[in-house]
Amino acid sequence: MKLREFENIKFTDGGVCAAKGFRANGIQCGLAHSGASVTKKKNDLALIVSDKECTAAAVYTTNKVKGAPIIVTKEHIRNGRARAVIVNSVNANTCNADGVEKAEMMCRLAAKELGIDENDVIVASTGVIGQILPIEPIAGGMKELAEGLTYDGNPRAVEAIMTTDTMPKEVAVQFEMGGKTCTMGGMLKGSGMIHPNMATTLTFITTDADISAELLQRALSDVVKVTLNRVSVDGDTSTNDMVCVLASGTAENIPVTKENADFEMFRNALYALMMNLARMMARDGEGATKLIECAVSGADTDKTAEIVAKSVITSSLFKAAMFGEDANWGRILCAVGYADAEFDINEVNVKIGSEKGFIDVCKNGAGVEFSEEKAKEILGEEVIEIIISIGNGGGKAVCWGCDLTYDYVKINGDYRS
Amino acid sequence: MKLREFENIKFTDGGVCAAKGFRANGIQCGLAHSGASVTKKKNDLALIVSDKECTAAAVYTTNKVKGAPIIVTKEHIRNGRARAVIVNSVNANTCNADGVEKAEMMCRLAAKELGIDENDVIVASTGVIGQILPIEPIAGGMKELAEGLTYDGNPRAVEAIMTTDTMPKEVAVQFEMGGKTCTMGGMLKGSGMIHPNMATTLTFITTDADISAELLQRALSDVVKVTLNRVSVDGDTSTNDMVCVLASGTAENIPVTKENADFEMFRNALYALMMNLARMMARDGEGATKLIECAVSGADTDKTAEIVAKSVITSSLFKAAMFGEDANWGRILCAVGYADAEFDINEVNVKIGSEKGFIDVCKNGAGVEFSEEKAKEILGEEVIEIIISIGNGGGKAVCWGCDLTYDYVKINGDYRS
Repeated sequence: MKLREFENIKFTDGGVCAAKGFRANGIQCGLAHSGASVTKKKNDLALIVSDKECTAAAVYTTNKVKGAPIIVTKEHIRNGRARAVIVNSVNANTCNADGVEKAEMMCRLAAKELGIDENDVIVASTGVIGQILPIEPIAGGMKELAEGLTYDGNPRAVEAIMTTDTMPKEVAVQFEMGGKTCTMGGMLKGSGMIHPNMATTLTFITTDADISAELLQRALSDVVKVTLNRVSVDGDTSTNDMVCVLASGTAENIPVTKENADFEMFRNALYALMMNLARMMARDGEGATKLIECAVSGADTDKTAEIVAKSVITSSLFKAAMFGEDANWGRILCAVGYADAEFDINEVNVKIGSEKGFIDVCKNGAGVEFSEEKAKEILGEEVIEIIISIGNGGGKAVCWGCDLTYDYVKINGDYRS
Repeated sequence: MKLREFENIKFTDGGVCAAKGFRANGIQCGLAHSGASVTKKKNDLALIVSDKECTAAAVYTTNKVKGAPIIVTKEHIRNGRARAVIVNSVNANTCNADGVEKAEMMCRLAAKELGIDENDVIVASTGVIGQILPIEPIAGGMKELAEGLTYDGNPRAVEAIMTTDTMPKEVAVQFEMGGKTCTMGGMLKGSGMIHPNMATTLTFITTDADISAELLQRALSDVVKVTLNRVSVDGDTSTNDMVCVLASGTAENIPVTKENADFEMFRNALYALMMNLARMMARDGEGATKLIECAVSGADTDKTAEIVAKSVITSSLFKAAMFGEDANWGRILCAVGYADAEFDINEVNVKIGSEKGFIDVCKNGAGVEFSEEKAKEILGEEVIEIIISIGNGGGKAVCWGCDLTYDYVKINGDYRS
């Protein structure tokens, strides 16, 4: 799947190590849980560290059930500063009485090995909920993990956060701010576990841009709303979602401390990065064979457009039809119709498209004749676009989802052990 | 699956013909749509008629896209009276420019054959959205349909509204009001089409009780909220949902015209009927192998309890785990946690049960030890109960769903033609 291009933003390699001064590593420390029947040989513990202290920002899951690492990370970046990230897969360290204690131990172990303050460490976990996190493998592996840190260690780190992901998800971008070239890179894990128990998203982003913690947080909060918050694989909000950004200032741009043109540039770059990560995540949703991009325009507000687009991409019936490559526009209109938003259904138009072209399937709320053959050709592609207009307003939104397949049921219906 | 029993209410046979003075029939008139590759030999047109005029009430889908029959039925029962129901499957008569005209023609054709006023006819359709309804098969079959009406014709009628339903869904109850025995019977279609395009529910109920149109509507509106509105197969609200009740007064009870004890009795009977139909619908949801009953208590309000219970039964991850017979309580807690309602997650307790017994899996928001073997035995049953308490409030609700299976994807991923 091609990356979506943006003006003034160049893609580059290196993921979380793309920006100057960031090292990373990933190892298999051996966290496989007790119920596991098959232990895939893959990394399960990652470390990212910046050569100098960074400003930091994060956004967390809104689930009332929160993983212990989230509680600890929130506390650690309260001062807007951080320098390292320690993250494990396999076990979510959630709903455990000793969860916070274990998450703090992970920070302490990493900090000791790196010679930094444990309060400068961000911690994250993903995996099965409600199983005690064994700290021994993490403690035992920390020395090797830290010693193996390199400025090109991103492939080992991204592997450590992968679960049922069928491909690693990394993007890095370069952009100019005040005559200086800045770099930003990120990695994301998709939905699934080796022994799948939840659709968890963790995203880690590093940049050498110089930006205040306050504006870093503002940019991140803005961009999350229109990227990660607009993706649905199965409608389940996880307990451990977290996205965080570290900004080191090594690029030596004029520090971004207010909402000026440089801030706009930074936010655009973050959008380009996270939007592409979001598309990769949807494309690689559990069992998915296709990315579905649904764009709604003509709404009274962006919020209304988002509600309608989300209603379409979360409809199980629509998703199953996409798997079947069936231009069943009735299901799209049905999902538009039950969206909890105000608009006139008689003004709804729907187009279906892909690299093979676009066709109108519905105008003014009623079906129009179209070539089923052409529709089949369009829907045979990997990236499907659903273009909906619902009136004459200026509100618009794009949301991303995937098809619903046998493999989704297989992955999630399999018994844990 | 056994019917759920209620005090002072007796189950009986006969479906929509159980109450005195109601005849029904169903025929195959030949509505198979153009894209159909396999035409299952089954009835597709049903008629229900009362010997005397009835009070009538109905509740409709809230989807902005409304089937034409809904528009016509609303108009016809505006005066609170009706005498017959004409209903077809295969074609939803929705999103068609001539939809209302065709729905009116169906009423006129039935009325003419029955010698009644066309405004006394309720019309309903279910099937593919956006295909023109051919009126010829309906016109051609109407004479045979009317001539074949009998006081035990309910099996032919219920077959005509079945689509991918794997079993007919009928319930009838008897109860006493003011010393008279009253009877009430109903039929419902589950989620799916021969060439499945939407999860549509149609429910038709007849009774010989004497009750004013106003109180009939009140009872129906109350009961729908806690039965049909608490079922989710796949979260898709259809465009053609309709439930209607005809009450003939033939039982000669003291007419129910105010909210007295008789009204309570009537409403309880309607609840017993519709709750059992709702359970049958969830059990027979597309591809389902299990009925999932989720009861939430201890909420501040019934609404809060309902939001939490719905969050659980609509979680794809939870539903897939139920298919896998996996006591993955983490997914239940996760769905409880992202429910849009106020409560303390640390007060949440979860039990899983069935005819094989009950086990605690989560107390005060954290996991408790349980026998996986016992859990497996419990989850091997056809009816699974998830019992959740979320605090000390008096609010409670029960919702019904089903597991998510390969067959759901198969049924809905198949191409229409």
